Formats: sequence, C-alpha cells, structure tokens
Amino acid sequence: MTTAAKLPAISLQKRQEKRIQFGHPWVYSNEVVMDETAKKLPPGSVARVLAADGQLLGMAHFNPHTLIAARMLNKFIEPVDKDFWVKRLSQALAMRDRLFDKPYYRLVHAEADLCPGLIIDRYGDVVVMQANTAGMNASRDDLVAALDELIKPKTVLLRGDNPSRALEKLPEEVVLLKGNAPEGLDVFENGLTYCADISGGQKTGWFYDQRANRAMIAKLAKGRTMLDLYTHTGGFGLCAAKAGASSVLCVDRSEHSLALAKQAAAKQNLSQVSFEQEEVFEFCEKHGKSKRYDIVVADPPAFAKSKKDVGAASRGYRKLAKHCADMMEKGGFFFIASCSHAINRERFDEEVLRGVSDARRGARILARTGADMDHPTHPQLPESAYLKGILLHVD
Amino acid sequence: MTTAAKLPAISLQKRQEKRIQFGHPWVYSNEVVMDETAKKLPPGSVARVLAADGQLLGMAHFNPHTLIAARMLNKFIEPVDKDFWVKRLSQALAMRDRLFDKPYYRLVHAEADLCPGLIIDRYGDVVVMQANTAGMNASRDDLVAALDELIKPKTVLLRGDNPSRALEKLPEEVVLLKGNAPEGLDVFENGLTYCADISGGQKTGWFYDQRANRAMIAKLAKGRTMLDLYTHTGGFGLCAAKAGASSVLCVDRSEHSLALAKQAAAKQNLSQVSFEQEEVFEFCEKHGKSKRYDIVVADPPAFAKSKKDVGAASRGYRKLAKHCADMMEKGGFFFIASCSHAINRERFDEEVLRGVSDARRGARILARTGADMDHPTHPQLPESAYLKGILLHVD
Repeated sequence: MTTAAKLPAISLQKRQEKRIQFGHPWVYSNEVVMDETAKKLPPGSVARVLAADGQLLGMAHFNPHTLIAARMLNKFIEPVDKDFWVKRLSQALAMRDRLFDKPYYRLVHAEADLCPGLIIDRYGDVVVMQANTAGMNASRDDLVAALDELIKPKTVLLRGDNPSRALEKLPEEVVLLKGNAPEGLDVFENGLTYCADISGGQKTGWFYDQRANRAMIAKLAKGRTMLDLYTHTGGFGLCAAKAGASSVLCVDRSEHSLALAKQAAAKQNLSQVSFEQEEVFEFCEKHGKSKRYDIVVADPPAFAKSKKDVGAASRGYRKLAKHCADMMEKGGFFFIASCSHAINRERFDEEVLRGVSDARRGARILARTGADMDHPTHPQLPESAYLKGILLHVD
Repeated sequence: MTTAAKLPAISLQKRQEKRIQFGHPWVYSNEVVMDETAKKLPPGSVARVLAADGQLLGMAHFNPHTLIAARMLNKFIEPVDKDFWVKRLSQALAMRDRLFDKPYYRLVHAEADLCPGLIIDRYGDVVVMQANTAGMNASRDDLVAALDELIKPKTVLLRGDNPSRALEKLPEEVVLLKGNAPEGLDVFENGLTYCADISGGQKTGWFYDQRANRAMIAKLAKGRTMLDLYTHTGGFGLCAAKAGASSVLCVDRSEHSLALAKQAAAKQNLSQVSFEQEEVFEFCEKHGKSKRYDIVVADPPAFAKSKKDVGAASRGYRKLAKHCADMMEKGGFFFIASCSHAINRERFDEEVLRGVSDARRGARILARTGADMDHPTHPQLPESAYLKGILLHVD
C-alpha cells in the first residue's frame, strides 16, 4: 500500500501543465524534468505530478523508460490500493450493469474508465485482464483483490502477450492470477451462445466491440444470403443466421477460430451456416464475381499496426472493399470495419468508397458506427475510438 | 414528357468534368459556360451535361439562376417522365421495405437516393413531399403519378415552405397535390403511436431521423428519471416512458407541439410523463441544479442556419451542454444532437465536451450517432450527414 506522504514526485517542464489541467490523461516523457531522481523511480511507481511552479496536478502511474511517461490516475492524492481500485472498478461496473442484462462485456476500457492501460473483459465469473503499462502490471494483485470484492470471479487470467507491453519493457506472459482457465467458454451476446478461447485466442478471446454492429446486421438478415469474411469465431455470421438469414458462409484462415464457430453453430442448430477455411483475399480472388450475396460483412484484423503502415493498409481496405462489392447482389448491404488506430475515420471511409467505385457499383452510406458502449472513448483521446464501421447500401 | 433528342445541352468550363465523372452530383454555376442559351433555359429544365470537349457526362436538372446550377440525374440520357421516377422511387422503396416493418419512414432522401433536392416522408398512405429545386418542383406531377403507381397514397402534400426554395426562386407554398390533408395523423415508430401535424408542424411534421437514437435512449431508461428538452411532439420522452422510465419531463416552447405529445401520451397511458411549456434555456436557468435526472436528452432545432452563425451556435451548444450536465445525476446518460449542417462533427463534439467540463463533470463518450438509415448519405456529399448525436456517461 502506498501512502500519500511517501509518494515520490515528478515535475513537468515549464508551461506543460495546461493539457493535464484540462483533463488529458497522458504526460509525455519530454514534458517531464527527467532528472536522476525521476530516472531512478521504478517503472510503474505511483507519483505525484507537479507543475513547474510546484503546483500539484494529481497523481499518476510513472514509467521513466517509455514515451507516455505518466498516466494520470487522479486529481487528488490518495492511497492506490485495493480500495482505490474497488472505487474505480465499481464505477465501471455500475455503467455496464445499466447497459447489459448479462455480465458479458468489457468491464474496463482503459483511460475512458479512468484506469489507464488496463483492459478487463468479463465472461460471467471468468475475467481476462490486459495490463499494458508498468503501473497497471504492478497493481495486478490489488486489481484481483478488488475484483474479488466486487464480482468474486472464479478465474482471473492475465493476457500479457499484447505487443504494446514491450513499450513498457514488460515481459510477454500469460498468467493465471486466480483459479483455473476453463477449457471452453460460453459467451452470451445478442441472444446467442458463442464459444471462445480465452487462453489461446486473439486478444482476450472475444471481441465485444462489434456486439451492436452484429445486432445491426442481424436486423437486415431475415431471408437473405450472407458472406461473413474474417468471421473469427462466428460473430456476425451466427448472429445473422439466428435472425433468419437463409444461408451464411463464414470465411476465416484460422482452423482454431472456425472450430469454435462451428461448435457454436451446432449448439444452436444453425444448419444454414457453412464454413470455409481460407485466407480472405485468396477466397475473394478465387470466387471473384461468380457468387453474389445479399449481405457481405468484412471485419479484418488491423491492416495498419502503426503510422508507417497507413499507405499499404489503405490500399488493403480499398482492395477488400472492391472484392466485397464485386460479390454483392444489387440492393444489398455491405458492412466493413477497421480496428486500425492508425487509420482515421475519414481515410477509412474514403478508401472503402473508392473500392466500391472501383467495382463500378453505386452506393449510399446508411450508417457510420463505432465500438459498442462498453468500449467508451476518453473525451481527450478521440484517437482511442479505434473501431470504425461503415454500412453501405449497394446499387 | 421530355424526349432525349430534344434535350437542351449545357457545357462545362474546361477541366471541370472530373468531379462529375467521379460521381459528384452537383455542378456549380461558375463551372458552366453560362452563355445566352444556357441563361435562357427555364429553371428546372432537364439538360444534357457536356464536358468542354463535348463528351456527354449525363443529364441533370438545370437552373441558371442558382449556385448549384445542375444536379445530375443520370449518366445516360433517357426521358425524365413518370416511368423514370417510378424506377428511382422503387429503388428507394425497396431499401426501406427491407429496413422497416411498417410504411412509416423517409422514402426519399434527396441526392443519396439519386433524387437531388427531393425529400419524401411517408406516413402509411399519407405522403409529404419537399421539392427544393426548380427541377423537382417541375417534376411534381410526374412524381405524384409515380407514387400512385407504386404505393397509391390517399394524400400527397407538398410542403413548399422550406427556406431553401428561395435559393431556386421558388414560391413559398403548401399545396395538396392529391387527396385531403388529414386533421390528425398517427405515426408508428419504435412500437409507439405518436401524433403529428403534417400541415402546420415543422418540416414534414415528424423527424424520422432520430428513430434509432430514440430507441437507443429507451434501452437505457427502465426505472430511470428523464428530462427531454426540445421534445417537440414527444419523440424521445414517450419512447423512454414506454420502455419503463419512472418519470419523464418533456419541455418545449411550442404549445401546439406539446398538445400533440400530450395526446400521444394519453393514448398510450403514459401517465408518468409530464410537460412544461417553456423556452429551454429559460427552463434551465430557472431550475439550475435544483433538480437532477438520470437521463437528459437535448435535441434542439439547428442553432446554425449557415456558416456565419457557427460562432454563436457553438457557444449555444456549449452552454446547453453545461446546463444539461448541471442537471445530471452522477452516473447518468446525456444525449445531445445537432442538426446544423454548418457545424461539423468535430466542432460539435468539442463544444459539448467543453460544456460538460464547464459544469465540472467528468464524462466518457459512449456513442457518436447520426440519422437513421432512411436518411442515407451520398458518398460524395459527406456534408449531407447533417445529424450528429453524442451519448455521454457523466460522472
């Protein structure tokens, strides 16, 4: 437990306090007076943050070895212990409990939930955590204790295999912090039961961010044919099938993900769903315009991992959109999403519309969507709204 | 009926054809060779549009006396008669029939539905039309004939009292093109029956654009208190009440609109809804922080009618957001919308977040929304996505 009196202090350079005073949660390393004391603070320390004139700005998780050196925790000084996290998590929990009937959601979405660098996905009494900063990694035991107090999970799994941990010099690791990792896991969403793999799957094993988008597509699906590209564990495709799609083809290159999708389809007798294990661009090039669908969904992994990939990624989205448009029935619906932080909304929309135009198809934009509400955005970090979806009606 | 052979031609200035070739629907007057022949064409003529080198670009509604001189109708030349409009409207109709169970929707949303300047709202067998260009105004009889063929409306009312008609030198008029204007009109939306006034109310009498946003708020409303500012005919408030809000206060300065809202509330026994006739800013200033609500919705009329109003309008949105935040319970939901074309998404979000910050409340962004799907956006006219909504969770 850290008591306030003992907290080390870091000082900002002159005139660097404004952004923090306006509520921005990050201090960059070049804004900090990086003297010997600061440099020697253990990564992940809780520190008081002072303006150049000594004024207290609040307290933060501090890491002298990374670009985002301090992540603000609070405007006031208080002990950062189990009770601190109980308060933080209970705010996040209260919001989710108002939004969702069942405890299957992203419980904590980092900065927007006032928990910088922390992601917690909840699957009933199984909890998967990503602690992507040294500060959050150092708080993990307190976080587990706080979760115990609030929701008594049977299992808490730390998925510490996110590449962003390397920026904080944290090890790549997957650690059971409590209980046992279940072999199979049911995920309840939009009235369906899906199957997820929290230990071996991507990220925390399930992508809640597309929940509302899946429901949106399902409402269009009754009696229609659908192609679900990058289906992963069947998110969009099974939801549309349950809503009455006449046939659904789910495509993914991962045998493991498709096995989970198949298992969920079988469990719910969604016999109109079929599966094809193939890389999506290869699938598109092979089938070209030979098959047409009323609904096409493409939810690829991030094409741009960083700013330097933007050019190649943009071409990728355009090409994918062209392929999809080529496979659309007249008057069909096309949904495509990007989870690349590095590509902004305008650029993504533009590339998708170019791709549709390359296919010589007219279209209108029906909706621009983002991640579901359990993935809120911090008002000062608009760039954290990483998920961009666009729904088109294609002539 | 216009036959292709007889169609007059207008020519673009040199190097002005690119945008049109890429599918943009507008030619500005300074891009046209405005010679004597062009100037003498009757406003609203259908004309062939030629590039400077004589290449055919398509056909358009032409008005020599307005800034947007030509609005593209087609890439090919064909007669613009009843049959032409039957084809156009049937495409728009097919899409709405896939989206909605009941025939209550915006049937035609102008350029995005390939009908530049034309708005058609449908209330079952009652149809309200805005023909905001000389070309569409001249096509009104063909449009009524096309509607007759497709949906046989009992009533077609032209609401020609939109200020934008003045730009095309069209008279302000409200004209019954078919049948009689019903005294009262039921509107079915989100499982409710609302009451609208298509002759005396604002615009076409009902705002379908907020349908999905009303449903989104209703899902948060069960057991909660709600304040619905600028309720108009009760759109958000009654939907939340039907979904189980414990109490709803609807505020509007229009006695006429509130009477319709009250009528709809009574019809559905929504006794937990109360009404207050007052200008919204006066209401806010009077009640200040004395009352708090779990949900606050503010859906004001456009604060900015044009670019010159942007400064004042921005201050207005910020002040309104501050007032709303002052009246929020901790952990409540705040939805605010802008239908001002002149204010863009970024500016609107920024002013709202500033206002919330002025009230010293923390917040997170849960959703950024637009108009519902029967108000599509033309891919080349992103500015036509006029409706911007933002949902915040307020600490």
